[in-house]
Amino acid sequence: MSEDAPTGLFVTFEGGDGTGKTTQAGLLDAWLREQGRTVVRTREPGGTEVGVLVRDIVLHHRGEVSARAEALLYAADRAQHVDTVVRPALERGDVVIQDRYLDSSVAYQGAGRVLGAGEVRDLSLWATAGLLPHLTVLLDLDPAAARRRLDAADKPFDRLESEASAFHERVRTAFLALAEADPGRFLVLDAAQDASVLAADIRARVEALI
Amino acid sequence: MSEDAPTGLFVTFEGGDGTGKTTQAGLLDAWLREQGRTVVRTREPGGTEVGVLVRDIVLHHRGEVSARAEALLYAADRAQHVDTVVRPALERGDVVIQDRYLDSSVAYQGAGRVLGAGEVRDLSLWATAGLLPHLTVLLDLDPAAARRRLDAADKPFDRLESEASAFHERVRTAFLALAEADPGRFLVLDAAQDASVLAADIRARVEALI
Repeated sequence: MSEDAPTGLFVTFEGGDGTGKTTQAGLLDAWLREQGRTVVRTREPGGTEVGVLVRDIVLHHRGEVSARAEALLYAADRAQHVDTVVRPALERGDVVIQDRYLDSSVAYQGAGRVLGAGEVRDLSLWATAGLLPHLTVLLDLDPAAARRRLDAADKPFDRLESEASAFHERVRTAFLALAEADPGRFLVLDAAQDASVLAADIRARVEALI
Repeated sequence: MSEDAPTGLFVTFEGGDGTGKTTQAGLLDAWLREQGRTVVRTREPGGTEVGVLVRDIVLHHRGEVSARAEALLYAADRAQHVDTVVRPALERGDVVIQDRYLDSSVAYQGAGRVLGAGEVRDLSLWATAGLLPHLTVLLDLDPAAARRRLDAADKPFDRLESEASAFHERVRTAFLALAEADPGRFLVLDAAQDASVLAADIRARVEALI
């Protein structure tokens, strides 16, 4: 958390597609509401009106989107989202539960593509004026297993989901390296476990923070 | 020009709205074609398909666009434009004539708003991998005179054009400071002069470069 950090609790969920981020965010949300907490559920990209437009460009544009343009579009979405949604909620003392944040950018654009992880991280830190989560839950899963889950869900793939499996392996490795470098912020869980087991682990960690 | 600069000629036009950039770019374009040069006429924001979408967000979104989000959206447009239009043209040896480039970002987002000029410039240099024009023509005009021209043209104002006059004064001052800091790249012209006089000055400078 940066020095000018507001007072709420900021929890992010990270990991590849098909690792159960949405399910776990939903379970944590429900549990926190039972405890009487005010929760803001949100996501990147696409957590604001501007972000929805940006997400649409990044995920569904048919022509080439250059690597630098992609990184900057995600950073723009993030700046808008932090400035208009996340910081105001944290300043009110709410809990923010967010699907994907800057670690996704570093893993996907930094390690997964041609740009350096350090450059992409610097860009995100500039976009957010240095706002880091209190807790980042990394749901780690073998990409082949994640793919089988997505196939079973039978929904169409967007541009990133359709990348080759070597790309998803690089992304997984990048996420694990980020977690290893910042163990105080990350909770790494084996996403092959039952959802109820994962939810209990996450609740225990959040409980210690509030 | 950065060290890995390609071989064509890169000319940008800068200045406030209503200073005659489009007119002068058109006259230079026509003259260069008469000399048998291949010319690419382009602009930012909006010089690519992705850029048109970005431009639409920045100029016409009705809600708040945060200052950092705006700067990052312009940088994304610029990255896409340089990667897919400007660099390929310069590598072919073409002349690129462009309406607005990184100096506009520094003047409008950097000096005109809450972000620092240095930060916005660094962002643009990252977006373009350091590509600077060979020549930047700054058409300088008192904002009140520019406003009278725009009123006479009787077209609707976008979000930036509708900003208060103090803002346009800060932008003008910022453009002049940029030119003073880099006299080798800039040609500063009094845009109150006749279009034919301005065109002759610009041709003379371009002729010396090709």
